[in-house]
Amino acid sequence: MPRPDLKDRQDLSIYWDNHLRVAFNEGAPHIYPAMVEASLAHVYMLTKQGILPRARGKLLLSGLLALWERTESGAQEYLFDGSVEDPYYFLEQQLARECGIPTSELDVQLARSRNDLDAGVFRMVLRRQLLAQTSLVVQAAADAAAQAGVNAESLIIGFTHRRPAQPTTIGHVLAGLSEALLSQATEMLSIYAELNVSPLGSAAFTGTDLPIDSELVGRLTGFESSFTSSYEAVAGAEHFMRLAAVHARITATGARFSRVLLEWMTFKWVETPTSFTQGSSIMPQKKNPVVLEHMVSMAGVTAADMAATYANIGSAWYEDSNNATTDVQKHLWRAGERVERFVRMLDGLLLDLKVLALPSHDEIVASGATTTAVAESLAARGIPWRAAHDIVGGLVRANAPADWSTDGVAAAFAAAGTDTTPELVEITLGAGQRPAMILSRAQAGSPGSQAVRHNAAESQGRADALGHEVQRRRESLDGIREALMATATRAVAGDTW
Amino acid sequence: MPRPDLKDRQDLSIYWDNHLRVAFNEGAPHIYPAMVEASLAHVYMLTKQGILPRARGKLLLSGLLALWERTESGAQEYLFDGSVEDPYYFLEQQLARECGIPTSELDVQLARSRNDLDAGVFRMVLRRQLLAQTSLVVQAAADAAAQAGVNAESLIIGFTHRRPAQPTTIGHVLAGLSEALLSQATEMLSIYAELNVSPLGSAAFTGTDLPIDSELVGRLTGFESSFTSSYEAVAGAEHFMRLAAVHARITATGARFSRVLLEWMTFKWVETPTSFTQGSSIMPQKKNPVVLEHMVSMAGVTAADMAATYANIGSAWYEDSNNATTDVQKHLWRAGERVERFVRMLDGLLLDLKVLALPSHDEIVASGATTTAVAESLAARGIPWRAAHDIVGGLVRANAPADWSTDGVAAAFAAAGTDTTPELVEITLGAGQRPAMILSRAQAGSPGSQAVRHNAAESQGRADALGHEVQRRRESLDGIREALMATATRAVAGDTW
Amino acid sequence: MPRPDLKDRQDLSIYWDNHLRVAFNEGAPHIYPAMVEASLAHVYMLTKQGILPRARGKLLLSGLLALWERTESGAQEYLFDGSVEDPYYFLEQQLARECGIPTSELDVQLARSRNDLDAGVFRMVLRRQLLAQTSLVVQAAADAAAQAGVNAESLIIGFTHRRPAQPTTIGHVLAGLSEALLSQATEMLSIYAELNVSPLGSAAFTGTDLPIDSELVGRLTGFESSFTSSYEAVAGAEHFMRLAAVHARITATGARFSRVLLEWMTFKWVETPTSFTQGSSIMPQKKNPVVLEHMVSMAGVTAADMAATYANIGSAWYEDSNNATTDVQKHLWRAGERVERFVRMLDGLLLDLKVLALPSHDEIVASGATTTAVAESLAARGIPWRAAHDIVGGLVRANAPADWSTDGVAAAFAAAGTDTTPELVEITLGAGQRPAMILSRAQAGSPGSQAVRHNAAESQGRADALGHEVQRRRESLDGIREALMATATRAVAGDTW
Amino acid sequence: MPRPDLKDRQDLSIYWDNHLRVAFNEGAPHIYPAMVEASLAHVYMLTKQGILPRARGKLLLSGLLALWERTESGAQEYLFDGSVEDPYYFLEQQLARECGIPTSELDVQLARSRNDLDAGVFRMVLRRQLLAQTSLVVQAAADAAAQAGVNAESLIIGFTHRRPAQPTTIGHVLAGLSEALLSQATEMLSIYAELNVSPLGSAAFTGTDLPIDSELVGRLTGFESSFTSSYEAVAGAEHFMRLAAVHARITATGARFSRVLLEWMTFKWVETPTSFTQGSSIMPQKKNPVVLEHMVSMAGVTAADMAATYANIGSAWYEDSNNATTDVQKHLWRAGERVERFVRMLDGLLLDLKVLALPSHDEIVASGATTTAVAESLAARGIPWRAAHDIVGGLVRANAPADWSTDGVAAAFAAAGTDTTPELVEITLGAGQRPAMILSRAQAGSPGSQAVRHNAAESQGRADALGHEVQRRRESLDGIREALMATATRAVAGDTW
Repeated sequence: MPRPDLKDRQDLSIYWDNHLRVAFNEGAPHIYPAMVEASLAHVYMLTKQGILPRARGKLLLSGLLALWERTESGAQEYLFDGSVEDPYYFLEQQLARECGIPTSELDVQLARSRNDLDAGVFRMVLRRQLLAQTSLVVQAAADAAAQAGVNAESLIIGFTHRRPAQPTTIGHVLAGLSEALLSQATEMLSIYAELNVSPLGSAAFTGTDLPIDSELVGRLTGFESSFTSSYEAVAGAEHFMRLAAVHARITATGARFSRVLLEWMTFKWVETPTSFTQGSSIMPQKKNPVVLEHMVSMAGVTAADMAATYANIGSAWYEDSNNATTDVQKHLWRAGERVERFVRMLDGLLLDLKVLALPSHDEIVASGATTTAVAESLAARGIPWRAAHDIVGGLVRANAPADWSTDGVAAAFAAAGTDTTPELVEITLGAGQRPAMILSRAQAGSPGSQAVRHNAAESQGRADALGHEVQRRRESLDGIREALMATATRAVAGDTW
Repeated sequence: MPRPDLKDRQDLSIYWDNHLRVAFNEGAPHIYPAMVEASLAHVYMLTKQGILPRARGKLLLSGLLALWERTESGAQEYLFDGSVEDPYYFLEQQLARECGIPTSELDVQLARSRNDLDAGVFRMVLRRQLLAQTSLVVQAAADAAAQAGVNAESLIIGFTHRRPAQPTTIGHVLAGLSEALLSQATEMLSIYAELNVSPLGSAAFTGTDLPIDSELVGRLTGFESSFTSSYEAVAGAEHFMRLAAVHARITATGARFSRVLLEWMTFKWVETPTSFTQGSSIMPQKKNPVVLEHMVSMAGVTAADMAATYANIGSAWYEDSNNATTDVQKHLWRAGERVERFVRMLDGLLLDLKVLALPSHDEIVASGATTTAVAESLAARGIPWRAAHDIVGGLVRANAPADWSTDGVAAAFAAAGTDTTPELVEITLGAGQRPAMILSRAQAGSPGSQAVRHNAAESQGRADALGHEVQRRRESLDGIREALMATATRAVAGDTW
Repeated sequence: MPRPDLKDRQDLSIYWDNHLRVAFNEGAPHIYPAMVEASLAHVYMLTKQGILPRARGKLLLSGLLALWERTESGAQEYLFDGSVEDPYYFLEQQLARECGIPTSELDVQLARSRNDLDAGVFRMVLRRQLLAQTSLVVQAAADAAAQAGVNAESLIIGFTHRRPAQPTTIGHVLAGLSEALLSQATEMLSIYAELNVSPLGSAAFTGTDLPIDSELVGRLTGFESSFTSSYEAVAGAEHFMRLAAVHARITATGARFSRVLLEWMTFKWVETPTSFTQGSSIMPQKKNPVVLEHMVSMAGVTAADMAATYANIGSAWYEDSNNATTDVQKHLWRAGERVERFVRMLDGLLLDLKVLALPSHDEIVASGATTTAVAESLAARGIPWRAAHDIVGGLVRANAPADWSTDGVAAAFAAAGTDTTPELVEITLGAGQRPAMILSRAQAGSPGSQAVRHNAAESQGRADALGHEVQRRRESLDGIREALMATATRAVAGDTW
Repeated sequence: MPRPDLKDRQDLSIYWDNHLRVAFNEGAPHIYPAMVEASLAHVYMLTKQGILPRARGKLLLSGLLALWERTESGAQEYLFDGSVEDPYYFLEQQLARECGIPTSELDVQLARSRNDLDAGVFRMVLRRQLLAQTSLVVQAAADAAAQAGVNAESLIIGFTHRRPAQPTTIGHVLAGLSEALLSQATEMLSIYAELNVSPLGSAAFTGTDLPIDSELVGRLTGFESSFTSSYEAVAGAEHFMRLAAVHARITATGARFSRVLLEWMTFKWVETPTSFTQGSSIMPQKKNPVVLEHMVSMAGVTAADMAATYANIGSAWYEDSNNATTDVQKHLWRAGERVERFVRMLDGLLLDLKVLALPSHDEIVASGATTTAVAESLAARGIPWRAAHDIVGGLVRANAPADWSTDGVAAAFAAAGTDTTPELVEITLGAGQRPAMILSRAQAGSPGSQAVRHNAAESQGRADALGHEVQRRRESLDGIREALMATATRAVAGDTW
């Protein structure tokens, strides 16, 4: 066997070719812009604190502003040419060029480390992604609730253990789903709060003796507070694990719903929306809603990204380690992007949900789904529950409810050793014939149509409130970023600090 | 090949032998007591609402009180004898015997289903386990903080990427760890709030037409509120996923710390506590702290329990399904019990932490850990950071700091194209010789001993507050349970409802 | 908050209570018998080699034989009383008692270590379990093939992407499943070969200078060969990973089939076997084949056991480490036992498979499943495939094949710009009306009934051959074990070595 | 909150934008070339069988040859422009353009389906990747063995449970590692055999009535045999699971070794190769071999790709489903590429392994690593093993072996209740002073230098044989592919079939 080659690019070392090149390509487009943003705040603070001379500060700021403009306009390219190992040194290289000085004269990294800068930009990238994801989850919750309201009387057969169970409505199912989504969105905002704490200023993990103002850097970059332990600020990974878990949670629940939706399409209760299907290469009759298969796969993959995140964190030391921090970012980014695509498709399917042909009352009765109602009616007249259950069970195993007879019912009572009356027989014969009775169920949270509408309205209210919270955070981040650019521009122009 | 046998117990069917028997043995001891408790509340409510006749209610309550006493005293046995399929029917069997009536006359399951009962008892079991776990995490956080205070001046070499990096203290590390634990405990209480919502009354998933009072049942069983969607109440699994994820998080972070602790023992900075070691079978010299290996394994296993939980939930339909609910309980129980044992060992190790022989100042200097301080000192005098870094890098690659000379320093400056002064040379020679300087670092969150003590005190305060919250919930659960028993006893004795 | 307790048993240390006790309870019943067996071989060899005096050898052998008898009869109890830390020392304790000597006089551990003993007994336990699992998988493959033969003409609608696709037969599906099972069984025997290599004699990891005969110990304990690197013998975990992966593979494929089977029951094509169902607590009409849900969950859990195994191995060092060896055993045991139960249920379901009411030809035609046949018939007459596909697609989207008309077909050809002839029209009208045509398909591997019977027969042949291989290995293990006991008994009785 | 956008590209539907676009970008570059290759074989067969007219066959072949040339030269671009949904239709589009006919006139898909084509190209892509991976693993095994031979006398302290245990050599460790790699490579060839079975001709899953020659298509595309069940051919996923598992196995074991290697660098026993390190941003003294951290992370991620593969397969039905087939490809590709990079880095590190300063004999003795040798020496003189262990244990807990005295030894014997002699005292004092004794250990598989050289030579032999097998398969694939192109070219040019 000829010796296999250990690298693809002969100008690079084995390590650079097989790791650093790949890591740069994955990471730079995500984190470089935030690195520039954080550097603007850092240099401004250093100068304001008198740690950097003003002329030096202005030079660096003007360079950073130029870099920022390049990333904003989309003009920045991220080519791994083998001259620098990672985005951190790439920033130095770009900045030195922009300022017209050698990198050896750069002060941008003074009183900070790649560690706290990385920790900071990881949070800056993830918090914006998290808000985007949250807004989609909130919207899906709102749309599920809206469709619940619309479908509060769309009567269907509810299943348990894959068997017809009881009548319910599409609205009842969707109102439940909306609650699950709201649970997720609520946790997402709690994770946001944990993400939005600044590690900037913690340096390698011990801080610094230089008179920096970490709080100022944090404020300028939109963080709500700053670290209280410089060790945990650099080594900590709690926020990464929480984020990975909520990603997997969103897709797991969505996968569950996608299977229900697929069946509604199979039963033709709802339309199979053509824009969400693919044809078959060989079977002319087919219109495959494979989107729902892919959503299940996305749940599997997102659970795997969570597994990778926990595994890499759990295999690190409690100290600065790429395992626990740098190396998990790509999973969080990848899973985050997948969650966005997943929830968009889920929401699209919810918005497109159109009732086609609901099961007829006869079908519902024939499925056996109304027999619980019979047993409950008997129990309401004093028949012990287990006996009522047995009587009705015997009847339904012999015939569908539509075929029950007075004699048969009487015989079933007799077989159970229970006395009967004409009223009880009539109840037995009648209570299972009216599946739509469920629509007038009064109990809160039940499929009764008023109950569903009430539940849906409450969920819409919660979604509105959460949406407002998401929006407030987004506007805050945008506003603070604009303010930072303005501040830096003023400092360069007018020497104001 | 002879046909392999498809069952171990010939009196059972293949399904009963290979699944139901195993599931009963795993589940009954966990959930049966809560089933009795929930049934007491249910029967009390049914009778109070007039759905059950009082005589019937009193009979059932007195039976349930007898069952309760049996579980409390430890007298209840859980033998799978093949007569009933699961704990639900086991309860019926036990109750009928106790009441002296056939199961066909039982009303205990009236207006509820195995579904909402299961959903309810799963929550009742998990909420108590979660409080027990939380109290351990809170205690470990408090103990880590306390040890941080004690060790605020225990100077060690801090590592990054497994290489000596900078001087820090044991206190600084432990104060950071305490914060991670507090993050976990805080989320645990948030999960508790999501767990402590009653699904009782949602029946199979559509509620009931009988005039039950779900809120009353929820209050009697210690829930803070009741379901708002009977569909999600039965089908929902958000709380299970959150719980599984925090379990895995606790052990992942603990595994990281266990590796650090192992190294401190290896370096003999801290004692290897004999009570946490095992000897070698063949190597007389050995005292193996394998506990720390096992803790790493426990993290791997707990991540796997999380994976199983998410996989099973994600492979279900969004409807009542054993995959998403019943089948994940054993993972939550198992992981929860493991988390308890894990945190107990972690806390035991923290409590036993004793400094043995910290690295000498010379060792710290020789490790190179003080050279950042040299570079920062130069930067504070106006040398651009990257240049300062290069100068010191050149020096340290040639000699350990203790061996630097005036001439060598001057040459390093010259090599970097930087002007030097006697003051700069002196700083260069001196700044790396005093690792203990770090103890007087003023920056908040840094390893400065005042900063560590302050951080530790804050964490202890947070731990106290969380501990108070845990305790309040525990006392509430206990009080409400006692009240339920008293209420039921009074109803039986005095016909008061 | 009161301090939570760090242990349950106050007579034990925190570590013993929270880890060693649990590990002993999990491990001892599995590994102790194999430890006794391996010790018999070891002591016999030591004595034969003259390393142990004969009197000493005989004393130890007689003690070990007594211990062996106790484990074989089921009389051995495994109580963790806090006097010894693990099964290894438990064996010493039991043996010393049996021999009437203090443990300090024991030589049973001479020239070996807990490391190689553990490595050996892990393999001894797993190889027997693996054979048991393999025999079940082979039997299920044979039974699937047998049922395939029986059902070679049981015509059903085959699905792709959850949509009716083409006619096939139950036999065709089961013949395919049989192949998947045979793939698994084949790998299992390959893993067996990797498992069945003796590490005994590798001691802690460097072997020994004492003149032991490792090959002899290996032969006496049924291993086919002995280690070639004492380092890998102790540290290696390749066989554990392979085993974990095949466990997960078996259940993943079985879970897939269980979903298909559930649908066949839902469609009432096959019976829902009552012995595999459970009733509903509240819905009298229900007969839930929840076994199929549980099988899906078992796949999720087994994948998690695999994940735990890989995670713990991957988080170890390449050296002796509990993470990579001891700690993964419980996952292999647990998953192995679950695989046994899973395949038993799968096989039971296959054996119970009874056709109830296959879809009528009209239903199959109405489902659209025959339209591929129409398009292929046209293509066989020279219509380009894509055009034929389009013509038939247009027809089927407008009407079910039973409702196609001569005019409609002509119009469809015209719309596709394709010339038509009366023959083509007739083919178009007829080719989709005969779903049973598939039964005479000649192609090898197809659903043609002869093809299925041929395929099934081949799979049964492969299963027979594999079953023979399994049986040969089992008999070899049993025979060698009997021979060891006989040899030891003779040595004790007659001083023959 | 403003409504979040559900797509990025407004010209696409939600489904196309969020799924098909992403899937095309991930998949097309991998599978399109193999699709062209398989289509060449398919069209050749169709024409040879007379199913396609020769003119039609020649037209399509000439188009396909042009497409093939474009992929080979790198000229083919893969742009998702929204006109076709996936690579399958992309191929049709490209081919129709090349042939100058509308897609409606295409026959390339006649008598096959996207299902069997996909199943076939997945195998074609994976088998080549697998050979590339296998050649790297084989090479790493050979290089590990070669370095084992070179370092057969490089004496180091071997560890167990992270504690100094016994003297061993770098060669002994590497010879063990080589065996683990050979185990992996051996399984990889077994997986190759399972991969290299053609599903082409199984069509959607039921084959076809057209008189195709599946065996011929299989032979032309380099498969060693063809499917025996058309159902399993399309639905089966056994080969995918096996592949995912071996990927994870390779990286798990490699991660274990990377930790050992890191420690050897930390102890300075071996050089830290500069080309595999990165500097620190802030700590001038540092040279971080973070490559070893990344390798650990790669193991975590590869385990997650395995988890995703099993999860998605296990959540499918046993029928054609994207979950089990299409959707897992990206994990197999991604993990396969990662495995290549991982093994390249591992091999690079092995090749660069240079001894720097091995531990001195005094250090080894002081570590306690030689005390097993003392106990064994006593045991060889008839002291019961447990007693010998206790005597030496007592001595070493009091003093390092270099500091033992005649009196101390005598006292230790007395304390253990064992008689002593001058010879025993001398042995006790001497046996622990000569760590290099291990180099002359005679036992096969031990660290004795002859044993290591022998083991290494055997492993090199196995690696050579495996390498030969890999190479034979590669050359076969290449040769058959060249022959296919030549055959197609001849058919087009000369109408030879």
